[in-house]
Amino acid sequence: MILPKLPASLAYGGDYNPEQWPESVWREDARLMREAGVNLVSVGIFSWAKLQPAEKRYDFGWLDRVMDLLADHGVHVCLATATASPPPWMSKKHPDVLPVDANGVTLYPGSRQHYSPCSPSYRRLAAALVRRIALRYRRHPALAAWHVNNEYACHLPECHGEATTRAFRVWLKRRYRTLEALNVAWGTAFWSQVYYAWDEIFTPRRAPYHCNPTQQLDYRRFYSDAMFELYRREKDILNELAPGVPVTTNFMGFFKTLDYRRWAEEVDFVAWDSYPDPLPGLEPERVGAVGHDLMRSLKKDRPFVLMEQASSAVNWRATNGPKAPGRMRLGSLQTVARGGDGVMFFQWRASKAGAEKFHSGMVPHVEPAQSRVFAEIKRLGADLKTLAPVAGSLVHARVAIAFDWHAWWAVELESKPGRIDYSGWAQELHRFFYTRNIAVDFVAPGAPLDEYALVVAPALYLLAKADADNLSAFVAKGGTLLATYFSGIVDEHEHIVLGGYPAWLRAVLGLWVEEWAPCAEGQENLVRFAGARGPVFKASHWCDVVHLEGAKALATFAGDYFAGRAALTEYAHGRGRAFYLGTRLERAGLDRVISTVCASAGVEPVLATPAGVEATLRERDGHAFLFLLNHRDEAVRVKLGHKRGIDLLARKPVRGAVSLPPREIAVVALEPGT
Amino acid sequence: MILPKLPASLAYGGDYNPEQWPESVWREDARLMREAGVNLVSVGIFSWAKLQPAEKRYDFGWLDRVMDLLADHGVHVCLATATASPPPWMSKKHPDVLPVDANGVTLYPGSRQHYSPCSPSYRRLAAALVRRIALRYRRHPALAAWHVNNEYACHLPECHGEATTRAFRVWLKRRYRTLEALNVAWGTAFWSQVYYAWDEIFTPRRAPYHCNPTQQLDYRRFYSDAMFELYRREKDILNELAPGVPVTTNFMGFFKTLDYRRWAEEVDFVAWDSYPDPLPGLEPERVGAVGHDLMRSLKKDRPFVLMEQASSAVNWRATNGPKAPGRMRLGSLQTVARGGDGVMFFQWRASKAGAEKFHSGMVPHVEPAQSRVFAEIKRLGADLKTLAPVAGSLVHARVAIAFDWHAWWAVELESKPGRIDYSGWAQELHRFFYTRNIAVDFVAPGAPLDEYALVVAPALYLLAKADADNLSAFVAKGGTLLATYFSGIVDEHEHIVLGGYPAWLRAVLGLWVEEWAPCAEGQENLVRFAGARGPVFKASHWCDVVHLEGAKALATFAGDYFAGRAALTEYAHGRGRAFYLGTRLERAGLDRVISTVCASAGVEPVLATPAGVEATLRERDGHAFLFLLNHRDEAVRVKLGHKRGIDLLARKPVRGAVSLPPREIAVVALEPGT
Amino acid sequence: MILPKLPASLAYGGDYNPEQWPESVWREDARLMREAGVNLVSVGIFSWAKLQPAEKRYDFGWLDRVMDLLADHGVHVCLATATASPPPWMSKKHPDVLPVDANGVTLYPGSRQHYSPCSPSYRRLAAALVRRIALRYRRHPALAAWHVNNEYACHLPECHGEATTRAFRVWLKRRYRTLEALNVAWGTAFWSQVYYAWDEIFTPRRAPYHCNPTQQLDYRRFYSDAMFELYRREKDILNELAPGVPVTTNFMGFFKTLDYRRWAEEVDFVAWDSYPDPLPGLEPERVGAVGHDLMRSLKKDRPFVLMEQASSAVNWRATNGPKAPGRMRLGSLQTVARGGDGVMFFQWRASKAGAEKFHSGMVPHVEPAQSRVFAEIKRLGADLKTLAPVAGSLVHARVAIAFDWHAWWAVELESKPGRIDYSGWAQELHRFFYTRNIAVDFVAPGAPLDEYALVVAPALYLLAKADADNLSAFVAKGGTLLATYFSGIVDEHEHIVLGGYPAWLRAVLGLWVEEWAPCAEGQENLVRFAGARGPVFKASHWCDVVHLEGAKALATFAGDYFAGRAALTEYAHGRGRAFYLGTRLERAGLDRVISTVCASAGVEPVLATPAGVEATLRERDGHAFLFLLNHRDEAVRVKLGHKRGIDLLARKPVRGAVSLPPREIAVVALEPGT
Repeated sequence: MILPKLPASLAYGGDYNPEQWPESVWREDARLMREAGVNLVSVGIFSWAKLQPAEKRYDFGWLDRVMDLLADHGVHVCLATATASPPPWMSKKHPDVLPVDANGVTLYPGSRQHYSPCSPSYRRLAAALVRRIALRYRRHPALAAWHVNNEYACHLPECHGEATTRAFRVWLKRRYRTLEALNVAWGTAFWSQVYYAWDEIFTPRRAPYHCNPTQQLDYRRFYSDAMFELYRREKDILNELAPGVPVTTNFMGFFKTLDYRRWAEEVDFVAWDSYPDPLPGLEPERVGAVGHDLMRSLKKDRPFVLMEQASSAVNWRATNGPKAPGRMRLGSLQTVARGGDGVMFFQWRASKAGAEKFHSGMVPHVEPAQSRVFAEIKRLGADLKTLAPVAGSLVHARVAIAFDWHAWWAVELESKPGRIDYSGWAQELHRFFYTRNIAVDFVAPGAPLDEYALVVAPALYLLAKADADNLSAFVAKGGTLLATYFSGIVDEHEHIVLGGYPAWLRAVLGLWVEEWAPCAEGQENLVRFAGARGPVFKASHWCDVVHLEGAKALATFAGDYFAGRAALTEYAHGRGRAFYLGTRLERAGLDRVISTVCASAGVEPVLATPAGVEATLRERDGHAFLFLLNHRDEAVRVKLGHKRGIDLLARKPVRGAVSLPPREIAVVALEPGT
Repeated sequence: MILPKLPASLAYGGDYNPEQWPESVWREDARLMREAGVNLVSVGIFSWAKLQPAEKRYDFGWLDRVMDLLADHGVHVCLATATASPPPWMSKKHPDVLPVDANGVTLYPGSRQHYSPCSPSYRRLAAALVRRIALRYRRHPALAAWHVNNEYACHLPECHGEATTRAFRVWLKRRYRTLEALNVAWGTAFWSQVYYAWDEIFTPRRAPYHCNPTQQLDYRRFYSDAMFELYRREKDILNELAPGVPVTTNFMGFFKTLDYRRWAEEVDFVAWDSYPDPLPGLEPERVGAVGHDLMRSLKKDRPFVLMEQASSAVNWRATNGPKAPGRMRLGSLQTVARGGDGVMFFQWRASKAGAEKFHSGMVPHVEPAQSRVFAEIKRLGADLKTLAPVAGSLVHARVAIAFDWHAWWAVELESKPGRIDYSGWAQELHRFFYTRNIAVDFVAPGAPLDEYALVVAPALYLLAKADADNLSAFVAKGGTLLATYFSGIVDEHEHIVLGGYPAWLRAVLGLWVEEWAPCAEGQENLVRFAGARGPVFKASHWCDVVHLEGAKALATFAGDYFAGRAALTEYAHGRGRAFYLGTRLERAGLDRVISTVCASAGVEPVLATPAGVEATLRERDGHAFLFLLNHRDEAVRVKLGHKRGIDLLARKPVRGAVSLPPREIAVVALEPGT
Repeated sequence: MILPKLPASLAYGGDYNPEQWPESVWREDARLMREAGVNLVSVGIFSWAKLQPAEKRYDFGWLDRVMDLLADHGVHVCLATATASPPPWMSKKHPDVLPVDANGVTLYPGSRQHYSPCSPSYRRLAAALVRRIALRYRRHPALAAWHVNNEYACHLPECHGEATTRAFRVWLKRRYRTLEALNVAWGTAFWSQVYYAWDEIFTPRRAPYHCNPTQQLDYRRFYSDAMFELYRREKDILNELAPGVPVTTNFMGFFKTLDYRRWAEEVDFVAWDSYPDPLPGLEPERVGAVGHDLMRSLKKDRPFVLMEQASSAVNWRATNGPKAPGRMRLGSLQTVARGGDGVMFFQWRASKAGAEKFHSGMVPHVEPAQSRVFAEIKRLGADLKTLAPVAGSLVHARVAIAFDWHAWWAVELESKPGRIDYSGWAQELHRFFYTRNIAVDFVAPGAPLDEYALVVAPALYLLAKADADNLSAFVAKGGTLLATYFSGIVDEHEHIVLGGYPAWLRAVLGLWVEEWAPCAEGQENLVRFAGARGPVFKASHWCDVVHLEGAKALATFAGDYFAGRAALTEYAHGRGRAFYLGTRLERAGLDRVISTVCASAGVEPVLATPAGVEATLRERDGHAFLFLLNHRDEAVRVKLGHKRGIDLLARKPVRGAVSLPPREIAVVALEPGT
């Protein structure tokens, strides 16, 4: 139960920004919320300027009236701390609030999120505001949870102002204690970079050429921590003043700037914002699914909440396509299918002014009664009510993808053999499991792996010794590992682990890599699988030059100086097996690789379905719910094998097979034992 | 008569910059001008540094000699106020002169136009210079007109310096009077942007994300006004000291930064600079034509002057192709054909040093006697003398394109459903009329429309209620309207007009739009015209999702979720008809749409001609001049129907048909009544 | 003998950065160097921060130990002055050290080369360091040469800080003496740029539009001189304190920022860094060859040293491919083949930390004994020892390409008819000679040309009168000249030479050019060679509009307004012939042009070889060495004609023909007279 105020139900609603509308609209809002089945809204996210007109003056009257109105209509509130965007008066009065980019350019107000995470003024004034809000609303009947700030760092990947520079030095002192240690860690003997005093160190500002990579990596760590520090300061106040009220903030999926794995430890439930691009050909259902899986894995013991999505189009891409009829409902129920206990939108009522007025809302610009979108919103509200029994159930996976923010930061720094899209490569490997209905968790390389049969480790470039040992032990105890190119290259200081890559994984993989042959854009190699008629696939992006030390080549390169060298290997280590893929194969080739690996690991799908039909399982206390989602624009028939039960949405028993109209969903409460 | 000093003649000449040459060259210049038939030159545009060597010191001696020499040779002068580029000493002494970009970067001298429009020093010193020039030359016999500054804002789309920031606040105070009104207009409740003091407001500088769109729109309005204020200050001095001498400045056609419609009220005649790219495939004749039409429409009661063009290549594109033989003369006479009473060049003599030395001139780097270009210049001079009877005649149009700078600014701000090239879309619609020899005016949406049979309103995204009412009334009274997608979406504050787009046009169009499906680059839909064998055309860029409310679908979409929905509609409103096109069609499809609309409106061409032959009509006091321009590289025969008269250039009567060699022109003084 | 300490041998080694490794590794390094045949290493290039921990404190102890160790192992040292990258304490204490870009953005430490060439603090502290190093090591037995700084200006194409601005004014005063002269030279009458005081002048910082081109050109001259001034200050100290020890710095081939021709006068031997991209299709052997030829020509009387190359991949491109087996050795021996007496690498031991750890080294990250690369390094060391007899011999050319940094700077400024890649065009013309085994020098347009039969002058846009006269005299005396489009357009002030381009070459070429028709990207014209069945080739990028004045058209354009005009001409002038090519032809067409020209000039190849086999000749005191390099991946047989001798590498006599396995080399000490 992630929200005690909403026991045994799925949360439904959206961001609600009543300050953008005259009070006359509020009552209509409350009525429509009830009509749509809304039970939770996020209020006050961008209300700071309204709540605090001046440093010494607050105005909570309007918010009191909103909270009361919502309580009267049975709508709960995820109340924001309102610190996401400081009012203009604040940066005017306290210029240290404003962030500064790597060129020394100050970012101005006029947009949002114009604050440096290390600004003393921002920190002081944010804390004061949060304290006031917590004191005022902690016992309000509408309050269901706290929504801290909003999409931390979304538009602000870095800051180089004075306060940030000082904070970076403090962070470094805490990490390294001595300059000697820092000089070793950063390898400052290279390029004459030795530091003899802490205040000689700067954030990686504009420089003539590549900045020191460990400096850059540490800056990324520091910056994630600096943002986290902001979150924790607010959370501490909320916990102190309102114990027992859940606290969260909205994550953004594969968002590089923040190490969400560390953040997840301090949220009471994971909430995130998902905006797959609905334009033709971009696979929004797959993109949505992999985001849910990453976010769900951050707190595996409880469901997450989809805190924001769009009812149709967004406004911030170059081309903002709408969601075709039925797609929004389908994507929303996918959220539940993959472990979500809440479906929310940005925003309740589409704005009539400002930068986001073309972002679709639950209530559109036209009269709701005329609107296709609002009709779909109401239908979804009814569906979620029907699906209340699912609340609290969990997704269990036997496959894990080792995914690490530090590896991400490190591998995408410049000055590498080739350019690696770390998150893209991880998502490409996830694709196989998504299309085969195999549940996947994303885990830290050093996480406990006992519950998994298979671990996939794509481009784990930065890998600490303990984490390499963890993966090796997993194999030794009987697990199956699939590692890919450019793994195990550097340690946590971004120093090469000497002795032949990937040094600490050499024993478990049974091979070593001498060098790399990355492919330029548009270049390709060929990979031939072993056997008389082994198929041939295109390989691009990267090719390792592998020396076998016990491993067996399952496929080899053709056509360049390393022709005949291994592209895919298998090695028995302890009681398990380790596979290594030294290149990026086209999809059919990659599917063949992972099929082989899955067979070796004994991993099975939830259900074999026709292409375009997603199947997932959620379980709780002996109850199991089979979700079937038809993403196709035509009807399909899905065979259930021995599974049977009650389709909660259709309210009828199913067995043998389920027929699904286009874009339709079945949620089958399975009979125990089927 | 736009230039009293040049009665009953067409102006011919160019920018003349004698300060770049030793005085020995000046006499040769005067001789060659006479040889070429030049009667007007623009002098002194970039002479500030020569005219004022120091704040307290002026030097007019050399200019006196130039003016006298020109007067002696019968060449009139459009005398510049010389304020287009401040001398280096000025910005050194008064750094407030220098502009500052959105990142806070100061722009330095070394180029040109390095002044902030709000700089107090620049304003003071420019006024002092203009006063001196006016006093010194107001009665000079060579003086024909004043040329204020030069290409205002050409290289300076914005400034964010301190003086500009203060001026922006003053402008806002004048517009909104109260902060409350500004906060409402800007929708500052969104994203915590509420202002509590005027000095909290900044120009839209670099910010973390999209700046407030109304702030950006008001900044564009302010900036156009700030430049206009510079112009008006100079004009007031000139009017005060030299009453009766025409004052103008050179516009630049479809130039987004300045709302020329407002400027046009304060110029005595419209002058503009036209530089279509002559490279193969870029349709320079069409590009030139649409520019002339826009500029001519700014002051419909009198001819305009082409103040600058190139005799062959320019220097500022990546690839600067020459004009093939005959093309310069053809383009120059197109200017006259479309309502111009003057043809001038940048510049008289091609520079030998500096950034524009590869910009062709009337006199090239080689000896004039050896030069093809100079031979063409002389021939053109003779032609223009021959065409003197045309002077003062006007072009009359029954078709108008509603075109508005505020709509342009607003629709191209980021954060829209898709990216719209406002001016490109208007020009694409103009293409039909250009190729069919149908005269078109560009008008304000709120302009009197009685003289028009057809009004085309492309993507009139921002549309005030009064302007929407003006278009509706035009239809009600019997006019024909063709509106296109993304019209009538926001009011003048850039607020959505609620209730279903395009709210204030919903009644006149008989439909409403629920949402938009913009296409990504390279994506396409299909549109099928009604009827058993209705043709099918490709649609790209944008598709509306239309609900009919009385309108009839003339064509529908195929192939996406909105298949079968209307793409083109027709609706009878009052005594007129309103058409609506909800997408961008390929050229053949667009031609079909506009043909249908023209037929409905009863709009006819000046003359039906073979492809590539342009026909226009100029009229004055019962005289009518038919221009026929053969843009093809082969001879054509143009049938005249009942029209007959005297070809002024060939000096012979024509009837039945005219034969035009490649790139040749006929100007037929029509017999009255034909 | 460029290194007295290494008489009669070829230098072999690399950058050695022991400060990156614990001392325990040093002894292993020395042992491996001996194993690999290393006799020279560059030490201390980035050691400033280690050598000088604070302004008043130096630490040479570690370097003493390194020098002694190397001396003990018979390895000589090219000792760096260590000024290539200042320590962080320095810019912290003396912020004037830091460079500033054209936007006014300061570049920070964290990378390398973060110093302004005009910083007083940098100059003072660099001089102090060099003095200390010179005094300490001038008599050290390991010392073989001084390596001043490193890759000057590599990452720093400009600086606009205060000290640089002042230095620019001083440089201008020295060049022009009076402001009047500067105003004339810069053409400041244009765009109101007249200067009345020296301190009104700035470096070409960010401006609204194109900066004055002569200002930009002079800035390039000044900046090259400012860097050169740094070099000369260090050299003067070294010469003063250590007379007789050779001094050099490492050049970078076709590097635009520095006028290496002027620099070459002050280095005791030319050293350069060569990094052709080994990715498929990029012709690294040709790119390497043309670089060697340019660098060798800077000091024609002595061999050069390849100071840096990679053993396999580099780290700084987007995609860094490895060198296939044998390619590194082949490229290294190409260096010798084209006049190099030394082959060195960046770096000895691949780093384990920092920005360049993925740059391959002589000793890789894996154990040397396991490494393919290190095996090849050892083989190369043995080869170079074998080739010692070649040391000191020279390459003699009868063809010269006129190549000039000032022309390069000028022609690539913006605001030209089209964009010209000056160095690319010169290298494209060099390609013919490379593939035909014809030796080529690169010379200044004003250089003595008596030893050449043919001079090729590509796009010599900026050409002083004396240099034009030099080329004309060369032809008059019997030489053959091939000039190409956009030559002879401006003088050294970047002023058009009036009277019909290319004015000062008009007489020698027998033609003049009226204007240019550059082609946009992707556009093409056709050129037809004279004669009944004259072949037709594609022409792109540029087409001159030529008027013949005595010259004969050998080929003409087809298909545009200048159809039939000359594209290639020939003219007899004095006792020689001048050819002119007015466009850029596809390779086959260009080959035909240059073949014709070579035949006319009587230029012959060293040896006719199969495609992909490079042949060069080095000569000394009657000894001649024929190099044959097989760049193909298959074996070839090369016929020697009358040539015979001893293959030094295979240690066997050759006559008639040589068989070369893939990527193999023969070096034939020819019998005298063959």
